[in-house]
Amino acid sequence: MNEVTLNQAAELLLTHDYFTVLMHRSPDGDAVGSAYGLCMALRSIGKKANPLCGDKIPECYRYMTEQFEIQEFTPEYIVSVDLATEKLLNNTALNYAGKVDLCIDHHASNTHFAKNEYVEGNTASCAEIIKKLLDAMHIKIDKNMANAIFTGVVTDTGCFKYSSVSPDTHRIAADLMECGAESMMICRKMFDSRSRAKLELEKLVLESIEYYLDGKIALIGMTRKMIEQSGVRDDEIEGISAIPRTIEGVEIGITLKEKEDALCRVSLRTCEEVDASKICLQFGGGGHKAAAGCSIQQPFEQAKEAILDAALKAAAEHLL
Amino acid sequence: MNEVTLNQAAELLLTHDYFTVLMHRSPDGDAVGSAYGLCMALRSIGKKANPLCGDKIPECYRYMTEQFEIQEFTPEYIVSVDLATEKLLNNTALNYAGKVDLCIDHHASNTHFAKNEYVEGNTASCAEIIKKLLDAMHIKIDKNMANAIFTGVVTDTGCFKYSSVSPDTHRIAADLMECGAESMMICRKMFDSRSRAKLELEKLVLESIEYYLDGKIALIGMTRKMIEQSGVRDDEIEGISAIPRTIEGVEIGITLKEKEDALCRVSLRTCEEVDASKICLQFGGGGHKAAAGCSIQQPFEQAKEAILDAALKAAAEHLL
Repeated sequence: MNEVTLNQAAELLLTHDYFTVLMHRSPDGDAVGSAYGLCMALRSIGKKANPLCGDKIPECYRYMTEQFEIQEFTPEYIVSVDLATEKLLNNTALNYAGKVDLCIDHHASNTHFAKNEYVEGNTASCAEIIKKLLDAMHIKIDKNMANAIFTGVVTDTGCFKYSSVSPDTHRIAADLMECGAESMMICRKMFDSRSRAKLELEKLVLESIEYYLDGKIALIGMTRKMIEQSGVRDDEIEGISAIPRTIEGVEIGITLKEKEDALCRVSLRTCEEVDASKICLQFGGGGHKAAAGCSIQQPFEQAKEAILDAALKAAAEHLL
Repeated sequence: MNEVTLNQAAELLLTHDYFTVLMHRSPDGDAVGSAYGLCMALRSIGKKANPLCGDKIPECYRYMTEQFEIQEFTPEYIVSVDLATEKLLNNTALNYAGKVDLCIDHHASNTHFAKNEYVEGNTASCAEIIKKLLDAMHIKIDKNMANAIFTGVVTDTGCFKYSSVSPDTHRIAADLMECGAESMMICRKMFDSRSRAKLELEKLVLESIEYYLDGKIALIGMTRKMIEQSGVRDDEIEGISAIPRTIEGVEIGITLKEKEDALCRVSLRTCEEVDASKICLQFGGGGHKAAAGCSIQQPFEQAKEAILDAALKAAAEHLL
């Protein structure tokens, strides 16, 4: 693994011509925005570039993907964006594990899997890095690129709300708006729009909320039955895990989602005093300090007990 | 009325020493942030300045107000911020109607009531103007000023989501962060924080949601019984009226709140094709094109029928 500077990363991109840009599975706005934004930019200077994700890109990102056709060519340079570890590649993207030439990422936990990497562990979104990279490459950012990159910036910051937001984040948003980014449309699609099915699931979730430790911990559970009953699509569930931490007094917010009979997915949001990634690491997961996740191979009730137990221990150590 | 430039407004402030800064009744984040931010700045250069609002400043803004003591002096220069018309002054602030020396505002609908005015009708918040004004006065913005001004910027833009947001808005946010604005704390307090009581009311509201016209109209009702059952404070209810319009496919979102036995308050949010203020005008109310309100002096069920009827007629005219 070779650490490169932003200018060196720009140079590596400028000196190659046929790109595949990899995304992690269950792609979010930052993965999609970074990959599509980069591919659009590379195409704008005459190169061939395709984004590649093992999963289908969720419907809500259609405004980035619908005008974008896959090109026919043999890739010679493999780039990954927003990918902390190759374990997050799946299906067709998995063919490129061990073959990534350049990794562009913003996860401090990056596992250094690529030949070359440019990682800014403190930057709020990978899309922010893409913006700086395009500037370093002297690429003129058009409206579609700006929309894609802006999407990454807003989705990975909860619309400029998270602690990771820096003055740079806002300056980049300003630049992107001047390049034509439709900020209101994007913010409305990403944050102020939900299906009737999702609203139904939110209702069921609110009915199931549990508080522990004088309301310092809140837990919501989504069983498969609730998900089926609501009729929600899998990619619509994301935002729900933010709910527990928004409640006044809650310092650890836990969202537990039943995936299979003995497999649950945990999403954890914490206050500054508690490190979410440390709690999730105990179950083989990871993430950021304020937001992390893990899988627990146990039935719903046991998984709930296990993650609650870990959260209560962390709370005893840091909150009491 | 004399229109002044930004620099002239700065000059007027620099050449006076004893200020009262007026706010509108039911003060929001922009009114409080602009008034407190300006007063802190004036004090920082040795002047005396008090904010004045006829209403109590809501608890949620305590981080701006708690360290700020009212000074004893006789005001010689009266400034208003975020005040579109003197009709919005009440109680003690009303004593200054007709006596405003300098009006600083961002409402295009400003009624030109002051001796001097500086109005930017297209700027997202009055706080943005205050920031530019302090720069023009060469005042060093400290952390408390930055927090106050940042509060105005985020609350009047729905956290950078509204169409009024410009690249300048983001650049000003970036500058304020560099001056020490605690952006995450402020965004969390203003947008991602709700009491358990409010969450309980949201749950009850979601259970009561009704759809009409193939889901183009959504209506939520808050009866006094629901409000009592949830234990919510009156000033916490505000955000709930945004819910119906956030549902995919909904073009007219109606929120009906029972105030008394024969008095209901309606809040209406609409898509571009339907004028909310026109519908509300039929009941003696008003507001903006996309968000308006009115009161209906009827019991809950009859009020519901009346507003639904008006909404269905507007939909028949503009949506079908």
